[in-house]
Amino acid sequence: MLQTIEWKNSTLWLLDQTLLPNRIEFIECHNFQRVAQAIKRLEVRGAPAIGAAAAFGLVLGARELCNDPEFRTSIERVAEELRQTRPTAVNLFWAIERMMSIIHKANPDKDTIDLIKDLEKEAIYISSEDCAINHKISQYGAQLFKDPVSILTHCNAGALATVGFGTALGVIRQAFAEGKITRVFADETRPLLQGARLTAWELMQENIPVTLITDNMAGWVMNKNMIQAVIVGADRITLNGDVANKIGTYSLAVLAKEHNIPFYVAAPVSTFDFTMDSGLDIPIEERHADEVAQFAGVLTAPEGVDVFNPAFDVTPNSLISAIITEYGVLEQPQHEKIIALQQKIKGVL
Amino acid sequence: MLQTIEWKNSTLWLLDQTLLPNRIEFIECHNFQRVAQAIKRLEVRGAPAIGAAAAFGLVLGARELCNDPEFRTSIERVAEELRQTRPTAVNLFWAIERMMSIIHKANPDKDTIDLIKDLEKEAIYISSEDCAINHKISQYGAQLFKDPVSILTHCNAGALATVGFGTALGVIRQAFAEGKITRVFADETRPLLQGARLTAWELMQENIPVTLITDNMAGWVMNKNMIQAVIVGADRITLNGDVANKIGTYSLAVLAKEHNIPFYVAAPVSTFDFTMDSGLDIPIEERHADEVAQFAGVLTAPEGVDVFNPAFDVTPNSLISAIITEYGVLEQPQHEKIIALQQKIKGVL
Repeated sequence: MLQTIEWKNSTLWLLDQTLLPNRIEFIECHNFQRVAQAIKRLEVRGAPAIGAAAAFGLVLGARELCNDPEFRTSIERVAEELRQTRPTAVNLFWAIERMMSIIHKANPDKDTIDLIKDLEKEAIYISSEDCAINHKISQYGAQLFKDPVSILTHCNAGALATVGFGTALGVIRQAFAEGKITRVFADETRPLLQGARLTAWELMQENIPVTLITDNMAGWVMNKNMIQAVIVGADRITLNGDVANKIGTYSLAVLAKEHNIPFYVAAPVSTFDFTMDSGLDIPIEERHADEVAQFAGVLTAPEGVDVFNPAFDVTPNSLISAIITEYGVLEQPQHEKIIALQQKIKGVL
Repeated sequence: MLQTIEWKNSTLWLLDQTLLPNRIEFIECHNFQRVAQAIKRLEVRGAPAIGAAAAFGLVLGARELCNDPEFRTSIERVAEELRQTRPTAVNLFWAIERMMSIIHKANPDKDTIDLIKDLEKEAIYISSEDCAINHKISQYGAQLFKDPVSILTHCNAGALATVGFGTALGVIRQAFAEGKITRVFADETRPLLQGARLTAWELMQENIPVTLITDNMAGWVMNKNMIQAVIVGADRITLNGDVANKIGTYSLAVLAKEHNIPFYVAAPVSTFDFTMDSGLDIPIEERHADEVAQFAGVLTAPEGVDVFNPAFDVTPNSLISAIITEYGVLEQPQHEKIIALQQKIKGVL
């Protein structure tokens, strides 16, 4: 399995996901601006991966401020710049908050160098923790399957979207290993084709049978009984159990309901926004028209065409059969269950 | 409005729709094999346009057999070759049957040259009739709209898919002229992007406001109340009112139902297959994996990935608010209504 994110010799190495599957290249980030750019450009993408990348971005930013007498003020600007990269995935804000709390909690007299060391430790911890979390999610998720099934997934919630193993694809990997998955249907996921470029690639690397379809085929695949479950990742989950995820997820959830097919969401608790009541409040990133109107530099629509390009949509809790977290499975997620999860996390911490 | 199909100097000129919107080029067909190839390659596409092209293909084939003493046997082979081009759109078979009935009904002694003249007349008639039919469909369809609405369409059922004006886009053109349409959302329609390349282009040519979206955004656009109706064309309609149309139509119909949005189908009666009881029996063309795995010659998925690429799907009658034909509007189409339509056509003929 390729490493999406690696911290080595004080450098953050990011696998450039915009070039996959045709080219495998790594971006060498020596400063936080390059990390911010990588998040904006989707060179690193996937909610958990963005969180980990931002944490290391903050370490790089802190190192640049090593001799800054106003370190604590200056680092806030770094944090803010990293926060501004993408609005929807909450893991980004979660990771930055966690990193900043190291500074906020530290003794005001603490030496900057020591603070930076603490930040680096925390980023490494966030990163390695993500792998462990993915494995837990995968084990809980695999228990949802009994008989072997074909399963549909959207976008990429795999090893590439996380520090390793994946959330939705982690569950698929684990269930496949347990003989419970016969085939994966991967939506290509327009406009940026994460399903075609990343998910199909990840699965083929491990010889998990995968069939690629265009997004508009999903309903027909369900109608023809070619799949028995849907599983996706998440970018933000609100207190009532609504889920923001890659555009197209909402349509899939409606289609799954129409066909009585269970619709699962796999995500770490860092994807939960416990400050937000409902999915209606989630800011939805709109991206550039060129993503839809061009492909590989070739215009695929008339020049100057008006485009609507939301990167995410929100699936209401009523369409979700279960959310799979590292703390277990929340069936029919609603407000009380998410509050109970929040209590459970607090109890553990 | 560009002419998709033109018969001039014993040559069939086809607008090459695979090159739009970047290049406007015409294919000069001097023999039926080139017409068959154009249908297979989707250089000419859209159920009514395919029907008209096949009719002229048969004329070209007949002319090649001018001196064939076994003309009536040989022309059957031409007809068969044209029938083999694509399996789903019934207009193809309808047009060929109509052309062949000229031969079957003719006096066995009739001179081949005279037969060929009759065939040419019939093909010209099928072609000019299609324009008139489109206008009737458009007028009936526009009556369905009262207050100005935004409308979603899929694939291209426009002037390019017909001999002129269009079916679903014909209704949109007419309703827009009557001030009843404020904006059209066009699904890009993967894998071959007929929505992006053709529909957006047709509408922009006439200054009808159009917004391009990827197919997986349709549900979210409905959820956000950005559209109030859906209209599509059809490739085959069975006796029970089931509709085969471009892949993705079925998903749209399910989504429209979930959002209480009317779902309209616009098609000439030549799209009805009165010999087939149900959409379950419609043969669905599966096309080459490269259409999904490549774009403009660039690989967009891992080499050798398994692909499922049905070109059409079937929408059950229960999801269709109305079918708009040149004979009027069939609301909630079912078996009895389609039989009544068949009787009406017979009465007129």
